[in-house]
Amino acid sequence: MRREELISKLCEPRGGKMILLVMDGVGGLPGPEGLTELERASKPHMDELAARSDLGMMHVVGVGITPGSGPGHLALFGYDPLEHQIGRGILEALGIGASVLPGEVAARANFATFDGEVVVDRRAGRISTEESRGLVELLSREIEEVEGVKVRFYPGKEHRFVVVFSGGELGERVSDADPGREGERMTWARAEDESDGASARTARAANALIRRVREVLGSHPRANGCLVRGFALPPDIRSLEELYGIRACALAVYPMYKGLARLVGMDVVEGLRDLSHAVEELSRLYDSYDYFFLHVKYTDSRGEDGDFEAKVRVIEEVDLHIPRILSLNPQVLAITGDHSTPSLMRSHSWHPVPLLLFSPYARPTARSFGERSCMGGSLGFFYAKDLMGLMLSCAGRLSKFGA
Amino acid sequence: MRREELISKLCEPRGGKMILLVMDGVGGLPGPEGLTELERASKPHMDELAARSDLGMMHVVGVGITPGSGPGHLALFGYDPLEHQIGRGILEALGIGASVLPGEVAARANFATFDGEVVVDRRAGRISTEESRGLVELLSREIEEVEGVKVRFYPGKEHRFVVVFSGGELGERVSDADPGREGERMTWARAEDESDGASARTARAANALIRRVREVLGSHPRANGCLVRGFALPPDIRSLEELYGIRACALAVYPMYKGLARLVGMDVVEGLRDLSHAVEELSRLYDSYDYFFLHVKYTDSRGEDGDFEAKVRVIEEVDLHIPRILSLNPQVLAITGDHSTPSLMRSHSWHPVPLLLFSPYARPTARSFGERSCMGGSLGFFYAKDLMGLMLSCAGRLSKFGA
Repeated sequence: MRREELISKLCEPRGGKMILLVMDGVGGLPGPEGLTELERASKPHMDELAARSDLGMMHVVGVGITPGSGPGHLALFGYDPLEHQIGRGILEALGIGASVLPGEVAARANFATFDGEVVVDRRAGRISTEESRGLVELLSREIEEVEGVKVRFYPGKEHRFVVVFSGGELGERVSDADPGREGERMTWARAEDESDGASARTARAANALIRRVREVLGSHPRANGCLVRGFALPPDIRSLEELYGIRACALAVYPMYKGLARLVGMDVVEGLRDLSHAVEELSRLYDSYDYFFLHVKYTDSRGEDGDFEAKVRVIEEVDLHIPRILSLNPQVLAITGDHSTPSLMRSHSWHPVPLLLFSPYARPTARSFGERSCMGGSLGFFYAKDLMGLMLSCAGRLSKFGA
Repeated sequence: MRREELISKLCEPRGGKMILLVMDGVGGLPGPEGLTELERASKPHMDELAARSDLGMMHVVGVGITPGSGPGHLALFGYDPLEHQIGRGILEALGIGASVLPGEVAARANFATFDGEVVVDRRAGRISTEESRGLVELLSREIEEVEGVKVRFYPGKEHRFVVVFSGGELGERVSDADPGREGERMTWARAEDESDGASARTARAANALIRRVREVLGSHPRANGCLVRGFALPPDIRSLEELYGIRACALAVYPMYKGLARLVGMDVVEGLRDLSHAVEELSRLYDSYDYFFLHVKYTDSRGEDGDFEAKVRVIEEVDLHIPRILSLNPQVLAITGDHSTPSLMRSHSWHPVPLLLFSPYARPTARSFGERSCMGGSLGFFYAKDLMGLMLSCAGRLSKFGA
């Protein structure tokens, strides 16, 4: 926390506006022509901007560490992703748009097939999302509270759903209520430490919940029970407003990224259809906030598909929105990714992410935005958690350290 | 302390001579022709040296953090500026050439106008430096001790002066004796923690001092009292000699930099007129020391003026002294800044500072010394606190770590 605290102490009450444009998984590896997706894309607006900007490369979590979306975004928002870890239950909840308040415990749940005490199918034959949704509605009607703890249910894809426990003191240090393998007897939730009463209470509620679910679903041929795992409290995070005195707004289409933004106290615009809609909203809300987080999902999706050309096209489409964003005249515009997703790998990777940092105080070095121009850029290689301090400085929002 | 300790343990008892030439605030931003002040300057000697040197960029305090002169120099001298913070009172004392010994507490003071218990003017109408100096002399004659604590006074500019408290155990965790706003009742000094007897003693002495000052100055129409704030002990710093076994000498014109050098145990040459004089003294004292710190102030001053061309000229003037410095045949010569002061910004900034490190063991990469050549240099981007280790290694003064 020392770095966040330091920057927090140096913060001025006002300054210029900042926009963080995240092209999810934008970092890539060379394709057939020896160029990465970003280098290959025809993106005249970003390239023109690069010639007036600082460029650099960011390690997101650490050298050689492949980041998930959670740590990737926390780092871009200025938090040390190793200090602020997000539990699996919370990430799953964020991913399906469930809100979890401080003190509540979220957990991942699966519909499963039981034969007595034995778990015979951990995914209940991968029942359809539609059927699963109906069962979650049934549970929501039938079960409100177990062992004095309130429960809420949120449907997910196929056999998956999320349970949120609330009311009174609840802990997260609880082992999974899941044998982890099929054909084995059920394993029940337990507090990792017997003396941790709050976690013991979560474990008792989870086990009671699973018994109630079996009563409610008893006659279903496949989904006659459930497993619950990844118990987690929301991370204890000071908001961007508390730390830096900035009002922040998130413009993202996908629930996971809206959830991550909410974790750090951003206001989240609901109902966005696409980037075009997001940029419209940016324009409309421009006077109301100091910091905007714009999220583009499809660079990552096409990378995960292994579709090099499609990822290139997503970057080219994003480029068309740059003039509209610049017309708002932000003092700072950072364009980067939360991790690399090289099409060649069809997955997230550890490769540093390229950063373009536009501000009035740049030391330009190149006429294009790409991995290789960023490697030789004015910012060198640094950690993504330091981007927030840089953006605040470029926005004239940080005073000097020491006299 | 871990890094300092490590380097300290690896130190050899002897080795080559090292010179650190600091052009204060040398780092810049592109001017009208797209070049920074350093890139624009005609400096054939430095450029020729660059072709035989390592180049790199240094973050002084941290990525995106704008350093004050205190932390900037501590970092260049090898100390972690976040671990060794220098209190306001100490910096003010250094800035006007007052010496503060270990265990003494320095504080900033203002002459002020009181109406009874109300502070009506915190700066006593900004009385002249001359008049203020006379009043400080009067206080020095009249007040030697309060509450068993000795006091010394040092005049500053206009209404400002410095008080140093000494004798017995004194603490620095003391709130300001200053309401901070005009038209308010006086706020008295208090120990931040009641159980901290040493700080309570400082607070009692400060309050008694303010009462005595009001008795002595009672009849003055404007400066009929004073405020005291920024109580600070000198930082607890091990000297360069203790850590690395080197005898170090400072050649600086301005009091602040001489004071910073004294803090880390350097001998300080007094009465220097300018860089020419400093280089003469360097020559004369060359055999007596292992490490020389040469400080050039005017790069920063012209940057703060916003005068791009004048800053360029200062760099060009410094360049004329390089042959004389090199004629001494030092094993290591580092040329850098303690922070950037871009003329464009008229202030210190967070931008990394360019470094030229001449030694027999360089991997040269460019034929000029400038921000952009340093970005692509052999040392990459690193933290200024690591420069001392590099200089010691290049001087043949560090043995290997592990076998």
